[in-house]
Amino acid sequence: MAEIMPHWLTKQADLAPEETAIELEDGTVYTFRELKEASQSFARKLKQLGVQKESNIGISSANHVDMVVAIHAVSYIGAVAVLLNTRLTRSELNFQLNDAGVSLVIGQTEFDPVDTYFRTFHDVWNSPESSADLKNEIDLADPFTIIYTSGTTGFPKGVIHTYGNHWWSAAGSMLNLGLKKTDKWLAALPLFHVSGLSILLRSVIYGIPVYLLEAYQKQAVHDAIMERDVTIASVVTVMLRDLVGCLGEMHYPATFRCMLLGGGPAPKTLLEQAKSRQIPVFQSYGLTETASQIVTLSPSNALEKLGSSGKPLFPAQLKIDKKEDGIGEIFVKGPMVTNAYYNNAEATEKSFSEGWLATGDLGYADAEGFLYVADRRKDLIISGGENIYPTEIEGVLSAMEAVDEAGVVGKDDEKWGQIPIAFVAVNDPSITRETILEFAAQHLAGYKLPKEIYFIDKLPRNASNKLMRSKLLNEYGK
Amino acid sequence: MAEIMPHWLTKQADLAPEETAIELEDGTVYTFRELKEASQSFARKLKQLGVQKESNIGISSANHVDMVVAIHAVSYIGAVAVLLNTRLTRSELNFQLNDAGVSLVIGQTEFDPVDTYFRTFHDVWNSPESSADLKNEIDLADPFTIIYTSGTTGFPKGVIHTYGNHWWSAAGSMLNLGLKKTDKWLAALPLFHVSGLSILLRSVIYGIPVYLLEAYQKQAVHDAIMERDVTIASVVTVMLRDLVGCLGEMHYPATFRCMLLGGGPAPKTLLEQAKSRQIPVFQSYGLTETASQIVTLSPSNALEKLGSSGKPLFPAQLKIDKKEDGIGEIFVKGPMVTNAYYNNAEATEKSFSEGWLATGDLGYADAEGFLYVADRRKDLIISGGENIYPTEIEGVLSAMEAVDEAGVVGKDDEKWGQIPIAFVAVNDPSITRETILEFAAQHLAGYKLPKEIYFIDKLPRNASNKLMRSKLLNEYGK
Repeated sequence: MAEIMPHWLTKQADLAPEETAIELEDGTVYTFRELKEASQSFARKLKQLGVQKESNIGISSANHVDMVVAIHAVSYIGAVAVLLNTRLTRSELNFQLNDAGVSLVIGQTEFDPVDTYFRTFHDVWNSPESSADLKNEIDLADPFTIIYTSGTTGFPKGVIHTYGNHWWSAAGSMLNLGLKKTDKWLAALPLFHVSGLSILLRSVIYGIPVYLLEAYQKQAVHDAIMERDVTIASVVTVMLRDLVGCLGEMHYPATFRCMLLGGGPAPKTLLEQAKSRQIPVFQSYGLTETASQIVTLSPSNALEKLGSSGKPLFPAQLKIDKKEDGIGEIFVKGPMVTNAYYNNAEATEKSFSEGWLATGDLGYADAEGFLYVADRRKDLIISGGENIYPTEIEGVLSAMEAVDEAGVVGKDDEKWGQIPIAFVAVNDPSITRETILEFAAQHLAGYKLPKEIYFIDKLPRNASNKLMRSKLLNEYGK
Repeated sequence: MAEIMPHWLTKQADLAPEETAIELEDGTVYTFRELKEASQSFARKLKQLGVQKESNIGISSANHVDMVVAIHAVSYIGAVAVLLNTRLTRSELNFQLNDAGVSLVIGQTEFDPVDTYFRTFHDVWNSPESSADLKNEIDLADPFTIIYTSGTTGFPKGVIHTYGNHWWSAAGSMLNLGLKKTDKWLAALPLFHVSGLSILLRSVIYGIPVYLLEAYQKQAVHDAIMERDVTIASVVTVMLRDLVGCLGEMHYPATFRCMLLGGGPAPKTLLEQAKSRQIPVFQSYGLTETASQIVTLSPSNALEKLGSSGKPLFPAQLKIDKKEDGIGEIFVKGPMVTNAYYNNAEATEKSFSEGWLATGDLGYADAEGFLYVADRRKDLIISGGENIYPTEIEGVLSAMEAVDEAGVVGKDDEKWGQIPIAFVAVNDPSITRETILEFAAQHLAGYKLPKEIYFIDKLPRNASNKLMRSKLLNEYGK
């Protein structure tokens, strides 16, 4: 049964036309009415440029109000926004654009040439408007966004988020955190990640402002919390560490009520530092597939369950496929969880069973049902909040003629949490680290490039010839 | 696409086992864990008594914790709760029980004999438990409750509320009012009305306590707001008038943040009195069909739009089928609106068109989209928050041999808002008001009995022989 509701932005502009939707660092403010009018205008221009219902439209941009407008504009047409990580290389991008059948990419600045039609936001603004009708209702079952995520094997997969997935994510967060009309949510995370995107959507659903930072700068985040009435901020571990440093002996205002921490496990020492500075850290666990947080530590338990990611949000369920030591694979279920990967029935079928998503992550639940994530997806490296899959890097390195085999693991790092390091067995003794990195840089975003490269004779493998990454790190890494 | 989520009460008992679910006037408290355990036990007993998935189970009770338990128990079985107004007569009840195919009625006290199997709550508690499994998930498309509502014509109709209707109602209210973990919602309205029932369901969805009054007593409501940390109260006009009286020159605590006013139009003088006493009145508009409020005046507009019912809640839409003077029939749409009347395709078809429900009520929207309800459903009489349909009373009176025809209208009343009064043309001059009332009392709940009866020769009718009720009141009533 279709659940139909008014278009979120139109509705919020009806309910609270003069309330702030977006606030920028320089003080510029966009009301819900202004954001609606801009987004509808942009949508009519996109229509004039040929964008149609159900088209997949690439958006490549750093955080910028035009990106917010573009996302809402795409939804006014009933098209789907494919959100592109701006740090990807040309070949990584090409894969996603081809896979999603993207016909047009729009973005903030000139795009590296790809085999796709491209328009800057500026180009779009300078186009004439179509007079065609825009959508004024949303069917929660319709797709809204696609965001690519790498997996433990194979190519990145396009996670389809329906309007319903985003709605239920916002509803689940609201039931956990409560909602005050004075709330203001800081978005310093990239909007092309679901952690950033979801802040935008909560804003139009809740009717609260987003304080949008165009790039992450620790001082800007610190100042926003101290001086700009931000009440909730979404951060990853590396940001929390920075902020603890900025805070020193000061305290955040009492109105700052939630530092929502995602993007991988946080060291206990950091959590304790945050606790001692009375920072209201809410650890959470989520995946692109779950449309942001799906397990969050609620206010009442934040202190006594340090290190836990909490309990599944109200509409969500959690189970652990237990191994002998209590730790097992984490499965999640709920209406915020994606129904499918784009155009990838095999991956979809492999990941889902009776509504449960196999996350690939390991963890356990304590007697009261609090989740402790033991390890993110097998071998996943999380560096500064970005997910890095060793297989992807290994695939690139092994593609060099001189490289026989390559193994990549995450090494603990004070600043980034982890960094990827590589072990390679080569057949040409003249090859250098620089040559390897030069080749890799053509195919991999900077944050995925191995920060250290070790030459070894042979990779450690088990009896079934499977690479033993744990051994690699223990025996060769330091 | 089915939306599956955990059973609400089980989930809330997982998230906040020791938080208060229900608080009674005598100080007794039930936690979410206790309420879950009681409801699951009650469900197993009902199962042992033969209640099955999809059975329609009548519940006849004044507000009582056992009624709350019974409602949740029915949902643990996947059965449907038919909530019976305790003020109905035997014949009114029989109609609803037959119409809904109710096989078992459970209730607080011995039930007037009807052709249905009956068990008191006490009987159920004394039964053994079945060991059968209970539901641990909810499909939002499944029916949860049926509540009968009279219409402008014909017999009462059973409004089916799915879990989704109740969910969306709760979500819409939360988006309007916000949600604080310190909220406590006063339920003094009967739980057999959707206005009372919806408080219970918000409690398990939001994780906040209900302060449950077993019967409406103005002093008890006053005291609850003054002394028991109630933050939100649902009231009807007659209650608001009482409370303004109780308050006198005092003020409610600052933590009391919402007096949600439903159940028909409120006189402007009363709203002004409430305003001058700083009572945070939120006028609202809703029907049984909309699973409680669907249009509500939000905090920011409460004062400047006195007399308006506000704007449709976030998931809802409103349109007015305009007549020349701007006033027209009110249509509403949204996922909280029922999809169907029970077993009544004709009424369903007549009331719905492309997702829009024709309410039968009249109103207009101002330039900013605020709804002003001009008249509740044509000829509807609202007396102390109870809906009374003239046709129903006229049908009963006309059934007397001595009565040729009868017309019923609502007369303004200081205390109740309106009271029903009747005009009858009789063929037996010896018949008295007492005889008529005695007959009517066998068929009509007390609040529906005409408070005044006038004998007239002939009812005023228009050219198509339609009763002109407005003329009746103007010419004959005083």
